[in-house]
Amino acid sequence: MQKVSIGLAGFGTVGAGVYKHILRSRDLFAERLGVRFDLRKIAVRDMHRTRSFDPPKELFTAHWEDLIADPEIQVVVELMGGMDEPYRLVRQAIEAGKTVVTGNKALLARHGKEIFSLAHEKQVPIFYEAAVAGGIPIIKAMRESFVANRFERIDAILNGTSNYILTRMTECGMDFAQALKEAQEKGYAEADPSLDVNGWDAAHKAIILASLAYGFWIRSDQVRVAGIENINASDIRFADTLGYQIKLLASIRVDSHASVGARVVPTLIPKNHVLASVNGVFNAISLHGDMVGEALFYGQGAGQDPTSSAVLADLAEAALALQSPRRCYGFTSHDLYGNVQSPDDSVGEYYLRLAVEDRTGVLSQVAGVLAKSQIGISSVIQPEGHASGIVPLVIMVHHAPFGCMRHAVEEIQKLACVKSSPCLLNVESFT
Amino acid sequence: MQKVSIGLAGFGTVGAGVYKHILRSRDLFAERLGVRFDLRKIAVRDMHRTRSFDPPKELFTAHWEDLIADPEIQVVVELMGGMDEPYRLVRQAIEAGKTVVTGNKALLARHGKEIFSLAHEKQVPIFYEAAVAGGIPIIKAMRESFVANRFERIDAILNGTSNYILTRMTECGMDFAQALKEAQEKGYAEADPSLDVNGWDAAHKAIILASLAYGFWIRSDQVRVAGIENINASDIRFADTLGYQIKLLASIRVDSHASVGARVVPTLIPKNHVLASVNGVFNAISLHGDMVGEALFYGQGAGQDPTSSAVLADLAEAALALQSPRRCYGFTSHDLYGNVQSPDDSVGEYYLRLAVEDRTGVLSQVAGVLAKSQIGISSVIQPEGHASGIVPLVIMVHHAPFGCMRHAVEEIQKLACVKSSPCLLNVESFT
Repeated sequence: MQKVSIGLAGFGTVGAGVYKHILRSRDLFAERLGVRFDLRKIAVRDMHRTRSFDPPKELFTAHWEDLIADPEIQVVVELMGGMDEPYRLVRQAIEAGKTVVTGNKALLARHGKEIFSLAHEKQVPIFYEAAVAGGIPIIKAMRESFVANRFERIDAILNGTSNYILTRMTECGMDFAQALKEAQEKGYAEADPSLDVNGWDAAHKAIILASLAYGFWIRSDQVRVAGIENINASDIRFADTLGYQIKLLASIRVDSHASVGARVVPTLIPKNHVLASVNGVFNAISLHGDMVGEALFYGQGAGQDPTSSAVLADLAEAALALQSPRRCYGFTSHDLYGNVQSPDDSVGEYYLRLAVEDRTGVLSQVAGVLAKSQIGISSVIQPEGHASGIVPLVIMVHHAPFGCMRHAVEEIQKLACVKSSPCLLNVESFT
Repeated sequence: MQKVSIGLAGFGTVGAGVYKHILRSRDLFAERLGVRFDLRKIAVRDMHRTRSFDPPKELFTAHWEDLIADPEIQVVVELMGGMDEPYRLVRQAIEAGKTVVTGNKALLARHGKEIFSLAHEKQVPIFYEAAVAGGIPIIKAMRESFVANRFERIDAILNGTSNYILTRMTECGMDFAQALKEAQEKGYAEADPSLDVNGWDAAHKAIILASLAYGFWIRSDQVRVAGIENINASDIRFADTLGYQIKLLASIRVDSHASVGARVVPTLIPKNHVLASVNGVFNAISLHGDMVGEALFYGQGAGQDPTSSAVLADLAEAALALQSPRRCYGFTSHDLYGNVQSPDDSVGEYYLRLAVEDRTGVLSQVAGVLAKSQIGISSVIQPEGHASGIVPLVIMVHHAPFGCMRHAVEEIQKLACVKSSPCLLNVESFT
């Protein structure tokens, strides 16, 4: 029986889950893989914190450097969260020739290029299935199962918290604050939910998916990111009237000049599209390969058990890789399509909601600004007047480059008849 | 650059696709994997058949034995179809120490136990992603990505032809014969569609999925299989009235005594379940693991390009395995839960449509038979009378063992008031 010695950094929700399942799955791994995992050390920030269940005290250390220093440890599992310490831990683990398993999407999105090239140089494998969409095995699918495909597009719901909030707003007519409060009460949102609802958590995952599809790392300042904080109950209703649902959608596209663009933006998607039926904390990834056509994966994107399942699958890979090292999947060339489309050049359809004065001539002024920018309107909703004298005005816009649209919205905002910040969302018809 | 020499048996739709994509993907594989595939021989039954495009004539042989005899060939790709010749080819390839890639679901469902134990003995890897659900990488997901999970249930739509026919019957009110004809015209159904519409193609795939989930091979006589030939337009309408859609559903379950049951039966599923929105030739597999919870995979289950994509992914695996052999994923023990539930013991809910005489007392007679077997009725639909004096009677039945239900239906069929063969379908509420 092959023994694999593991050092675990981080004992939060996922770290504790990994510990629990390594114990619980002892027989399963012996039987399915002929492997026995030996968890030698757990590095934590606070040695004195009370924990819901307690591994033997002697396993713990307050210094992650101890995982590197222990020559017996073959695999370092990084589940600390944060950036600077994980960055140093992962680099040092690779330098020391230890296999790395990580679920840290922010780390990979920021330092992926450097980390993977160091790993390539040192011939150390890195596994990171837990970094994107927890229980959905999308990393392995893209790297291995679809290895013969060139990817045409990826559309994904990658943040369970945002999706839960939008689902509740859609199902119950809640506003954002109510739905967020409920998500926090149910443990689906952190006390500080900003990274989840501002789109950046999903953006980190989209950067990782793009790196798998196109073989290079998009910088985060090259991704257009918007969160769901400004969606209100009326947007949900207008979208519904128009035949759409609003989802925080990550979209990655390659255009005919092989330029890759990525955005994470609240997006109106047709109600009959399968992504519209992905509700609650679930995630889903739809991708188009030139051979497989459309393939879609759906599952839980977070949570202790689904994420631990991904980490344990990575540990199985790590065990097999230790037993007989082989060439890894993944692109040897990282510059094949190394060409990023500026968000401003990305052509899309849009939903624009304004708060305007309730008087004639307003629509004509707004439409005039759009016309000057050669932007075509496909439909307009102007609900009945309100005692306040301020009414919403919803405009659906045909294909336009985002930069052009952004500029037009800035101009519209300067009109005297426009009374508060416009809400600009993407519309995706998947054609 | 590693060179991998391949012998291909079969040059039908998928075989020709594999040939085409091996040529087309030369640079991609060199770049992504550092591998060059060298297709040395193609074995075909008919050397003189005209083909839509023609590999060099010298590649062809009429004798698959030539693939075995060629010492240069490292990987045999079996895409012949049929049973006896593929069986001999695969056995001989393993005996000769050649890696096997096959898409032959019938072969594995019938001889899997023997083939895999021979392969284990000879330490030869077998890859078969193309055997189940073409473009959906479910084999790798179950073996590798979910290696830490115990599977609680699997529900799947595994035959695109049946699903296309049922979709058209649902969307357009077509009857079975019309929808089948359309499927044949569009190339979605063979001239002889029996294996697709009688449920057996899906059953072979279900047997393979069950072997991955539970580590042993269910015999085909232990699977309850029914096709869609007897579904008529009125069944589609009654199901719709009751809130369901009819799908040819493969269901694999493990009960509290660790008995595994499998069935492939036309099944009423709730319209709001995600499997109900899997339409046309698409396939989908929903599985529940004890760690990941529900995970669902959706994509094209057949067709030249999606299936070739799966074969090429297997060739990539084969290349890596040749380069550095390692322990394979998969269960070492094949008897862990080697316990099959008899179809008669499987408890389900049912939809029963009868053609009965249009007179009072009929429902009471039918209900009487069910009551004698302790079978509870949950609802009844009795449409208005018809000039013929024969009317349909639809009965929805609560949980009952299939054997008990089957026996009751046999009794009901003997009643004088029952005029033609009953249509008995399963109902799955996914609770």
